Amino acid sequence: MSGFSFCVRATDGRARTGIIETPRGAVRTPAFMPVGTAGTVKGMLPGSVAETGAEILLGNTYHLMLRPGAERVARLGGLHRFMNWDRPILTDSGGFQVMSLAGLRNLDEEGVTFKSHIDGSVHVLTPERSMEIQRLLGSDIVMCFDECPALPADEEEVARAMRLSMRWAARSRAAFGDRPGHALFGIQQGGLSRELRAESAEALREIGFDGYAIGGLAVGEGQAAMMGVLDHAPVMLPADRPRYLMGVGKPDDIVGAVRRGVYMMDCVLPTRSGRTGQAFTRRGAINLRNARHQEDPRPLDENCTCPACRSYCRAYLHHAVRSREIIGAMLLTWHNLHYYQALMAGMRTAISDGRFAQWEADFHAARAEGDIAPR
Amino acid sequence: MSGFSFCVRATDGRARTGIIETPRGAVRTPAFMPVGTAGTVKGMLPGSVAETGAEILLGNTYHLMLRPGAERVARLGGLHRFMNWDRPILTDSGGFQVMSLAGLRNLDEEGVTFKSHIDGSVHVLTPERSMEIQRLLGSDIVMCFDECPALPADEEEVARAMRLSMRWAARSRAAFGDRPGHALFGIQQGGLSRELRAESAEALREIGFDGYAIGGLAVGEGQAAMMGVLDHAPVMLPADRPRYLMGVGKPDDIVGAVRRGVYMMDCVLPTRSGRTGQAFTRRGAINLRNARHQEDPRPLDENCTCPACRSYCRAYLHHAVRSREIIGAMLLTWHNLHYYQALMAGMRTAISDGRFAQWEADFHAARAEGDIAPR
Repeated sequence: MSGFSFCVRATDGRARTGIIETPRGAVRTPAFMPVGTAGTVKGMLPGSVAETGAEILLGNTYHLMLRPGAERVARLGGLHRFMNWDRPILTDSGGFQVMSLAGLRNLDEEGVTFKSHIDGSVHVLTPERSMEIQRLLGSDIVMCFDECPALPADEEEVARAMRLSMRWAARSRAAFGDRPGHALFGIQQGGLSRELRAESAEALREIGFDGYAIGGLAVGEGQAAMMGVLDHAPVMLPADRPRYLMGVGKPDDIVGAVRRGVYMMDCVLPTRSGRTGQAFTRRGAINLRNARHQEDPRPLDENCTCPACRSYCRAYLHHAVRSREIIGAMLLTWHNLHYYQALMAGMRTAISDGRFAQWEADFHAARAEGDIAPR
Repeated sequence: MSGFSFCVRATDGRARTGIIETPRGAVRTPAFMPVGTAGTVKGMLPGSVAETGAEILLGNTYHLMLRPGAERVARLGGLHRFMNWDRPILTDSGGFQVMSLAGLRNLDEEGVTFKSHIDGSVHVLTPERSMEIQRLLGSDIVMCFDECPALPADEEEVARAMRLSMRWAARSRAAFGDRPGHALFGIQQGGLSRELRAESAEALREIGFDGYAIGGLAVGEGQAAMMGVLDHAPVMLPADRPRYLMGVGKPDDIVGAVRRGVYMMDCVLPTRSGRTGQAFTRRGAINLRNARHQEDPRPLDENCTCPACRSYCRAYLHHAVRSREIIGAMLLTWHNLHYYQALMAGMRTAISDGRFAQWEADFHAARAEGDIAPR
């Protein structure tokens, strides 16, 4: 087994395409990671996820530690085997979801004590325990344990959380140790403040990580504020290591982030939307629940090669969504993941060819046209 | 396009194996038809249903007439195209489900007026309208419109419903007309009464159908009573035409029915059970919700070649079912349909080889062993 490595293959402005090599396979960047929260990308078989072009999944430490439990997953051979996905997996640290999902929490220098949202049982997460859980799961890319405050928050609170996260990053680094073939990523915090982002980036670079994430965004600040941060935050982090923007986002968020120097992203949007009747297309997002689709014999997108577009008309998808049939969630999730992966592939090619600006202009022009007219 | 035909290939006792030829492909009997209620076999893509070995699906006239509507399906190219299934489809007549699902009903000689369980809208079903709907859907095997009383019911009521159904069968036959490549099946009624079953069979044979169904069973009478009827009912119907037992059933019901001369069956059990955590195996049914599976690294059935058994341990299936993940329903439905199709294939081979009795003894012996012991 070789180790973990990353190299940039082409640069176009701040946008870069490259490749992450891991013992479980390569990940071409810019990369979008579908979210496999609790050991499954909801509504998809792993083989289908791979067919969409996904080369890496994200797993959630918070969900998996509560159910089925990290020790149990380890006894069953690790998360890859458990969920039948043999390509790379990145796991988050649990920090973000403890703050957003768990009941009653108590946070101190040591870590976080919280109650499970499933059964109310009490659990503790510290940097050391988060590293242990991610090791037990068999994660290929491990994330530092951090505290991520919801925005808006006052700068003092954002600074306190960032500095705590930096001390936790040092503890995460120490606890992670030396694991050939596995990577540990630090997470930049600092909210919307350029100074705090710079301080955080400096702290992380001093500790030294295999990759660097931008955390604390897509937490309620809005797209304009997020892009404002992305105008300066990514370039504070090493360009020759993966740069990962956590929890983002909508298609235009992703394109804007790639233009600003981000290489990796994850988001529940394509999968969650697929379960609520929303489909992403070149011409924007459409809601299949809408009666305008009820007798439309055309596919979602005549240029798309996913199973939903190859074999079904909009009227069928409308019917399946309205009837709450599982196949509606299955087909729309597949389509949305296919759309996201095609988006990333398009950007990788455009960057390689040095025509990212033109690609981006075409992307926005197609969306501006709006959905194909009802029949 | 050639026409619809059936021929028996081998006989072993009352059990027979044969083949139904239709313009959309052949159906080997004994055949099990997965139920695709409202244009989807719940939780499965059509390609996956075909992979389990299914050669024909059942669609429900009642559900499809209410949503999306038969005329709409016709305008969209018919049910096969709408749901992306190009093999044969049998549709029921709507009669049974009107009685079991619809609100406020009014039944008279002409037909049934009822309220939709979806939106309360008022609809009418008559033999003529049922034939029209099934034609609009593009059904390959059309069922006569009948009235099926729930059991227990007094004999007078059963006789009245049977005789009405026979008059409706004659009207269905007249309304169906001559449609090369499409078949119309009559439905025997008569509850648990041998005399009424004989009267019904005689009436149907006099009208003349492409196949004959046994209706009015699996409606609350219990397995022993059903098998009592099946000891005499199938042989009242022509042996050289398909004999179809409607709405049955559990694996041992199916085996018992095949032994008694039934060639076709349908049931929601494998799909519905798959959505509630129940799996069928050679060694009986097991409930994946049960905590005994929570850390079991073994597959559901080590001899099964379905995706759930090839790629997942029981602990994963337990986790997916407990976490209400869609993949739990997807995998267990796939497994159950695979199990049912393998069961039919096993019976077809056993009948061909003239060793059905031995096959049946082995079937019961494996079930008697019970599930593999918890690890």
